[in-house]
Amino acid sequence: MTELTIVQAAELLCRQDNILVLMHKSPDGDTVGCGYALCAALRKLGKHAQPVCSDPIPKVFSFLTEGFEQQSFEPEYIVSVDVAATTLLGDGLSIYKDSIDLCIDHHPSNTGFAKNTYVDGTAGACAQIICKVIKAMGVSFDRYIANAVFTGIATDTGCFVFSNAGAEAHSIAAEMINEGAESAMITRRIFETKSRSKLELEKMAMNTLKYYHDGKIAVIAVTAEMLSVTGAEESDTEGIASIPRQIEGVVIGITVKERSSGIYRISVRTSDGADASAVCSVLGGGGHKAAAGCSIEGTLESATETIVAAAEKELERLQ
Amino acid sequence: MTELTIVQAAELLCRQDNILVLMHKSPDGDTVGCGYALCAALRKLGKHAQPVCSDPIPKVFSFLTEGFEQQSFEPEYIVSVDVAATTLLGDGLSIYKDSIDLCIDHHPSNTGFAKNTYVDGTAGACAQIICKVIKAMGVSFDRYIANAVFTGIATDTGCFVFSNAGAEAHSIAAEMINEGAESAMITRRIFETKSRSKLELEKMAMNTLKYYHDGKIAVIAVTAEMLSVTGAEESDTEGIASIPRQIEGVVIGITVKERSSGIYRISVRTSDGADASAVCSVLGGGGHKAAAGCSIEGTLESATETIVAAAEKELERLQ
Repeated sequence: MTELTIVQAAELLCRQDNILVLMHKSPDGDTVGCGYALCAALRKLGKHAQPVCSDPIPKVFSFLTEGFEQQSFEPEYIVSVDVAATTLLGDGLSIYKDSIDLCIDHHPSNTGFAKNTYVDGTAGACAQIICKVIKAMGVSFDRYIANAVFTGIATDTGCFVFSNAGAEAHSIAAEMINEGAESAMITRRIFETKSRSKLELEKMAMNTLKYYHDGKIAVIAVTAEMLSVTGAEESDTEGIASIPRQIEGVVIGITVKERSSGIYRISVRTSDGADASAVCSVLGGGGHKAAAGCSIEGTLESATETIVAAAEKELERLQ
Repeated sequence: MTELTIVQAAELLCRQDNILVLMHKSPDGDTVGCGYALCAALRKLGKHAQPVCSDPIPKVFSFLTEGFEQQSFEPEYIVSVDVAATTLLGDGLSIYKDSIDLCIDHHPSNTGFAKNTYVDGTAGACAQIICKVIKAMGVSFDRYIANAVFTGIATDTGCFVFSNAGAEAHSIAAEMINEGAESAMITRRIFETKSRSKLELEKMAMNTLKYYHDGKIAVIAVTAEMLSVTGAEESDTEGIASIPRQIEGVVIGITVKERSSGIYRISVRTSDGADASAVCSVLGGGGHKAAAGCSIEGTLESATETIVAAAEKELERLQ
């Protein structure tokens, strides 16, 4: 594995054609923003480029996906964006796991699975890196690319709320707005719009709230039954992960979501120096310091017990 | 009333001493950020300057108020920041209403009550203007001033979610972070921290949600009883105002809060071109296009009926 600079990554991309850009499974605004921004930029250079994902892209990002021509070609160059490990490609893209030519990512935990890699663990969003790569490729920005980059930054920083929203996130956001990004439309769609069923789901989930460890740990549960009763979709559960950590005194906020019978997807959000990635990595997961995830098999009760125990260990380490 | 430029406002301030800076009643992060940033800058020029408000400053802004020396002097120059009309000074400061020397504001509805005025209705936050005034005064930024300016911008843009979070808001935010602003601490305190009682209050308020006009209007009620049952404070009701507008399909989101027996404080939030200020101004209130407020006397039912009727008129105007 070779570590590249931004300029080297851009130069490599400029020399390729028929480029497939892999996004991670359960796609969020950052991987989607990166995939579509990069492909739009590559197409402006006359290349064939197509973003692909093993899961459907959520409807909330339709302003990026609709009208973006689907190109079919024999892939000659494989790039991954915002993908920390090949397990995150999902089944649909796992065929590419040993043949990724270029990995562009911002996860410090990136496993170095590609031939060439550019990882900046200090970037709040991978879209900040993609923005620099596009500049280095010499492609001029337009409203579409600006929207895609802004989407990535806004999503991964929780709309500039999280601690990863640094000066660079804001200054690139300003630049993208000046390039035509429809920031108000994007933030309204992603952060200010809830379906009625999502609202109902949040009410039900909030009723499950439990505190542990002197109120330093808070856990919210989302069961499959809640989804079916409210008619909410899997993607409606996303905002819920940030609720427990918002409560005064809570250092580690946990959401336990029932994925399929017996499998629970855990989201961990931390503050005050607690390391979410450390909590999740002992259970086979990973992520960032302030936000990470893992999966646990069992019952709702046993999964909760397991993750609370891991969180308590992290609190003890901090003392 | 004379309309000034930023430079003229800065020059005027540089010539004064013993400056009293008036903030609006029910202080929010923008008026507080402006008041403390401006006074800190004036003090760096060796002047006496004191921010004052007719209501207590909420504890969430203690990182600005604590340790900020209280100066007592005979005021020689009176400045108001983020105050659209003298009625908003509150009883405690109404003695100054006819003697305000300089008004710095970003409300297009500013009534022009001061001898000299600088109003920029396009600024998302008044703190963006204060930042420019401080620069024009030749004062160098420090962490304290950067924190105060960042607080103003983050508060008035709903942490960069609202449509008023333009390129300037982001670029000044980036600048303030580079000047030392503790953005993560500030956004966490203001947007990511809820007391348990606030969480309970939100749950109860969400249960009152009602839809009108084909789901284009949504109304949430907060009664005095809810506050007493949950132990929540008046300031805990603030985030609730943004909930109804977040619901898919809702164009006008309304919150009806019981202030004292028979008086209801109404918050209106709009999207898709609807004018919140127009809805509220017919009832004696005002504000911005996307966010405005007014007070209505009556019962919860009659106040709701009145504001819904005003909102329906605005929807009809839009057709």
